[in-house]
Amino acid sequence: MDTTPARAGAQHDSRLRDPAALFDAARRGDRVATGRLLSLVERGGPVAREVGRITFPSGSDPGHVVGITGAPGAGKSTITDRLITLAREGGAKVGVLAVDPSSPFSGGAILGDRIRMQSHALDEGVFIRSMASRGHQGGLALAAPEAIRVLSAIGMQTVIVETVGVGQVEVEIAGEADTTLVVVNPGWGDAVQASKAGLLEVADVFVVNKADRPGAAETRRDLENMLDMNTVMGEWRPPVILTAASSAGEDSEQGLRTLWSAVLDHKRFLDESGELLRRRERRLLAELERVIRSNLSIRVHDLAYAGRAEPVREALLRRQVDPYEAAEQLMGLAGL
Amino acid sequence: MDTTPARAGAQHDSRLRDPAALFDAARRGDRVATGRLLSLVERGGPVAREVGRITFPSGSDPGHVVGITGAPGAGKSTITDRLITLAREGGAKVGVLAVDPSSPFSGGAILGDRIRMQSHALDEGVFIRSMASRGHQGGLALAAPEAIRVLSAIGMQTVIVETVGVGQVEVEIAGEADTTLVVVNPGWGDAVQASKAGLLEVADVFVVNKADRPGAAETRRDLENMLDMNTVMGEWRPPVILTAASSAGEDSEQGLRTLWSAVLDHKRFLDESGELLRRRERRLLAELERVIRSNLSIRVHDLAYAGRAEPVREALLRRQVDPYEAAEQLMGLAGL
Repeated sequence: MDTTPARAGAQHDSRLRDPAALFDAARRGDRVATGRLLSLVERGGPVAREVGRITFPSGSDPGHVVGITGAPGAGKSTITDRLITLAREGGAKVGVLAVDPSSPFSGGAILGDRIRMQSHALDEGVFIRSMASRGHQGGLALAAPEAIRVLSAIGMQTVIVETVGVGQVEVEIAGEADTTLVVVNPGWGDAVQASKAGLLEVADVFVVNKADRPGAAETRRDLENMLDMNTVMGEWRPPVILTAASSAGEDSEQGLRTLWSAVLDHKRFLDESGELLRRRERRLLAELERVIRSNLSIRVHDLAYAGRAEPVREALLRRQVDPYEAAEQLMGLAGL
Repeated sequence: MDTTPARAGAQHDSRLRDPAALFDAARRGDRVATGRLLSLVERGGPVAREVGRITFPSGSDPGHVVGITGAPGAGKSTITDRLITLAREGGAKVGVLAVDPSSPFSGGAILGDRIRMQSHALDEGVFIRSMASRGHQGGLALAAPEAIRVLSAIGMQTVIVETVGVGQVEVEIAGEADTTLVVVNPGWGDAVQASKAGLLEVADVFVVNKADRPGAAETRRDLENMLDMNTVMGEWRPPVILTAASSAGEDSEQGLRTLWSAVLDHKRFLDESGELLRRRERRLLAELERVIRSNLSIRVHDLAYAGRAEPVREALLRRQVDPYEAAEQLMGLAGL
C-alpha cells in the first residue's frame, strides 16, 4: 500500500521517497518526514534497510529509552502522558512509540492513547507514534529498535516505548529499553504469576498505579516480598512507586515526580555502573539473532516446499513420520 | 522443574515417567495420566518428543477441533462452557485447552475460566486444561498441536482450543482449528481493524456475544459488510451469530443452539468439500516449518556467539556495521 499523496510538485514527491532526504528533513524538525521514515521502517524491505543504514551510526546510542509495559487498562498511556511533561521540563525532546502487536481489538485503545496524550499535540519537542504489527510475526520486534533509532537519530533525547498488552512480544520489546517500567494496579498481586512470566527480570521500576484504590499497600508489599527473594546484593533493586496518574491534585503530582526521579536514578545507575553499555551490547546482539532468524525463516519456507522435499512431505501427510522427524530429514537434505 | 511427587510405590512412580504407560492409562480414562502427558508435552524436550511419537499416528486426525478467539472479556469461556454441554448432548467426549501465551496478568482469567467451566467438573467425558507459555517464545505454538493430538488420541472426539487474548500467537493457534470462532461484542465493529489483523481470514463463524446489549445489530451489520467484500462465491461464508452466553432463559439457549448448529454445519462443509483434508495438510506443513524454525533457532544462537563470529560481533558493537549487515556476514561465514 503506497500512501504517497497526490504529487505537490516533483521536488516534494521525490523527498517523500528518498530516505536520505527524509532523514535530513526530519532532523530539521519536519514532522511529516519523521512520520514517513517510521512508516518505511514499519513496512520493512529494502527501503527500510536503507533507513536503517542511515540512522544506525547516530541512532544506536540513544539518550534514554524508557519502556512501559503492563496489562491493558493499567494506566500506561496516562503515565506516559505525564512523564512526557516531566521529561520536557528537564529540557529533553521526547519521542513516544505506542506498540501494539495485537491491533485488532485494541485499535480503540491506540486511539485512546493518542487522545490521552493530546496535551502535547502542539509541542514541537514531542513526537508520538503508534506502531501495529501488520500481521507478519516477529515483524514488530524487528521494527521497534529501528524506529527507536530513527527517533534518536533525529534528536529525541528521551524515547518512551509503551506497549499495549503483556504478550511475549510486548514484554520483549518493553524489556529491551534502558529503563523498563512495569505498571500494575491494586488487587493484582499474584507474585507467582509475575515471576513465572519473567516480569521480575525485565522490571527496573514497578509502578502501582490507581493507588488511590483499596489494596495498593498490599500490592506494594507483595512486590517487595518478591523482590526480597530475587534481588542480588549490589545490583539495582527495582523501587515500587505508588501513583494515581489520572488524578489531578498535589498527591498525584508528587507520585509522578517520585516516579520520574526513580527513572532518572536508574539511568544514573546504568551510566555509573557501566551497565548501560552492557545492556546496549546485549540488545544489539539480540537484534542480530532476530535478524538472522528472520532471514532463515524465509529459507525454511523455501526448504519445506522445495521439490526435493516432496518425499518427506508425503511421508508426513501419510502420517508415516511426525513433524519432528520430518524436520530432521529435511534439514539433513539441506545440509543444515 | 520436576514435579514428580514422593514415590507412592515403584510401579506408580515409573508409570508417572513412562510416556507409553501414561498413554495406556490415559486411554483407559485415567485423568491424572492425561494431565501428566499434557505436562510432558508442555515442557518440551526429548520426553515430549516421545509422547509425540506415540500420539501422532492416532491423534493426527482428530474428530473436530474448534478454536475460539477474541478479546479478553468477550465471553469466550462462558461460550466454551455452554458449547461443552451441547457437544456432550451429541455424545462426544470433549477436551478443552485454554491457551494463554501472556500468563502474567491473566492468571486470574485462567482461574476464572476453570471456575466458569466447573459445571463439567464431575463429567468423566470432559477434560479441561490450561496451557501457559513458560516463557520460551514460540513454545506454545509448538506445544498446542501436540496437546490436541494427546486429547484426540485418548478418545476426545471434540477438542475446543480457547485462547485468552488476540495476540499473534493466540490468533495463530486458534486459527489452526478445523472450525474457528471469533467472538466480538456489540460496540466493537471496526471492520478496518479486523481485516487489518487478518481475522476475516481465520474466522469460520463470527459470534456477537453479549447481544442483549445495545449495538449488537450494528456490529452484525458491520461484520456482514466486511464479509460481503471478502467472501468468494462458492466458498464458505462465515455466519454471524448473536448470543448472550451468560444469560439463562429461552433466548440465550436458542442463541447457543444456533451457534452450535453453525459449528456443526461448518464441519459438514469441511467434510463434504474435501476442505478438512486440505486444512489438516496445511496445518501439518505449517507445523513442520515451525519445528524447523525452532531447531534452527538454537543454531542461530550458537552461530551468533561462535568464536569465528567474534570479528563480526565486534564490528557491530563498534557500530561499524548494522545488525542486518552483520547478519549477512555471519550467515556467509556459516555457509548459510
